[in-house]
Amino acid sequence: MIRIVIIGTGNVATHLLEAFSNCNTIEVFQVSGRIQPESSFFQGIETIATKTKADVYIIAVKDDKIAEVAHHFPLKNTLLVHTSGAAPMQVLNDKNRSGVFYPLQTFTKGNTVNFKNIPICIEATTEKDMQLLKKIATLISNKVYQISSEQRKTLHVAAVFVNNFTNQLYEIGNEICENHHIPFAILKPLIQETANKLNTLSPKEAQTGPAVRNDEKTIASHLEQLSNNSYKEIYKLLTASIKETHGRKKL
Amino acid sequence: MIRIVIIGTGNVATHLLEAFSNCNTIEVFQVSGRIQPESSFFQGIETIATKTKADVYIIAVKDDKIAEVAHHFPLKNTLLVHTSGAAPMQVLNDKNRSGVFYPLQTFTKGNTVNFKNIPICIEATTEKDMQLLKKIATLISNKVYQISSEQRKTLHVAAVFVNNFTNQLYEIGNEICENHHIPFAILKPLIQETANKLNTLSPKEAQTGPAVRNDEKTIASHLEQLSNNSYKEIYKLLTASIKETHGRKKL
Repeated sequence: MIRIVIIGTGNVATHLLEAFSNCNTIEVFQVSGRIQPESSFFQGIETIATKTKADVYIIAVKDDKIAEVAHHFPLKNTLLVHTSGAAPMQVLNDKNRSGVFYPLQTFTKGNTVNFKNIPICIEATTEKDMQLLKKIATLISNKVYQISSEQRKTLHVAAVFVNNFTNQLYEIGNEICENHHIPFAILKPLIQETANKLNTLSPKEAQTGPAVRNDEKTIASHLEQLSNNSYKEIYKLLTASIKETHGRKKL
Repeated sequence: MIRIVIIGTGNVATHLLEAFSNCNTIEVFQVSGRIQPESSFFQGIETIATKTKADVYIIAVKDDKIAEVAHHFPLKNTLLVHTSGAAPMQVLNDKNRSGVFYPLQTFTKGNTVNFKNIPICIEATTEKDMQLLKKIATLISNKVYQISSEQRKTLHVAAVFVNNFTNQLYEIGNEICENHHIPFAILKPLIQETANKLNTLSPKEAQTGPAVRNDEKTIASHLEQLSNNSYKEIYKLLTASIKETHGRKKL
């Protein structure tokens, strides 16, 4: 039996708790991150940490709170990991053996996710800890990657492009439709297929549309139609970027 | 039995041909767009048009060739439609009754698509023609929309944002990963979930990440990491756009 303590109550904490709870070989405990005042929260961590003797303690709190929680963590020489994509492993102090257990996914409250398909990026300072994190990760996911803090930092930037920025393009599509009384639903199959194509093609191979065809007439007509100046700028910049990727001449 | 002639051999023509071929109540013929020289292609259109007496002739060629094909089309007072998202219905001349039959999807050669989920945008000049196009569209798709040329023009711009530009963000994510020896596959479940979220949330509700949290520290760190200047510009512009959508202060 592997004993795990999760510190925190946010989306990542909740989804990890659910995934671990479904494993017969894992016993999981949680310290609520909602305990107020903060001193009582740290008291809660102290209580559960000294009581449970877990194999790994997982700090799943906001990035800017990780160092503080690690600072108040009462044990020494135990395995203490965080779940952040952006924070380096070193944000945890060296009173304990540090590690990272980062599930690369966008979690929404109340939305059940299938953890089996969620990549988990692990990092640790000793080979033994790495093996333990790997074992735990493999129990809940089919996609486990050893990723250094440096790589994870890069991955986090890439994730912002394919998730937050992509979602903003959906939002712009939505706004354009709404302004012209067109149901946004009409674009959803296209959005789905754009993502699905990556199962068989690279993004470069999958590209279509006026920019990759160097179809200046359509590009000019689209720019003319956009009344919102920041959408115009985004259109120009991404069109130029597509041309650059595909070796077309710039705007 | 509804008789349809498809003029063209591109992706849209091929996929429409396949979808129609699976309908018991449709008889479909095709004029290859690959016939060279062009005079022979127009000869081919003339031959099949005079022979078949179809209910509808579908021009599925490149946007800038539609007018020319319509010009060489030998019949009069028959229903002649195109399949373009960008071209207005009026690009077809008035020798015939015009219409549009635009499947809003990104087609890839060799990739089978389920037409049932593909929105088909139809337009016609007479109510009778509209009913015929609706009947045909409904035979192959569950999602049929009456969309004017003006709305279709708008829809095409929106489609560029959610398809071509989104795909370019995937490409940037891919390049960032490759440059740091990280497998792009690690981002694919995130990409998939970003699209899937739209089944239950609006893009605005689904947004996460540093921009919507106004997390300037992470934003600054991401910008510092991006060595490619055009990626930096795209990062800044889309971050500002997210802040604008969510009423956050600008960069």
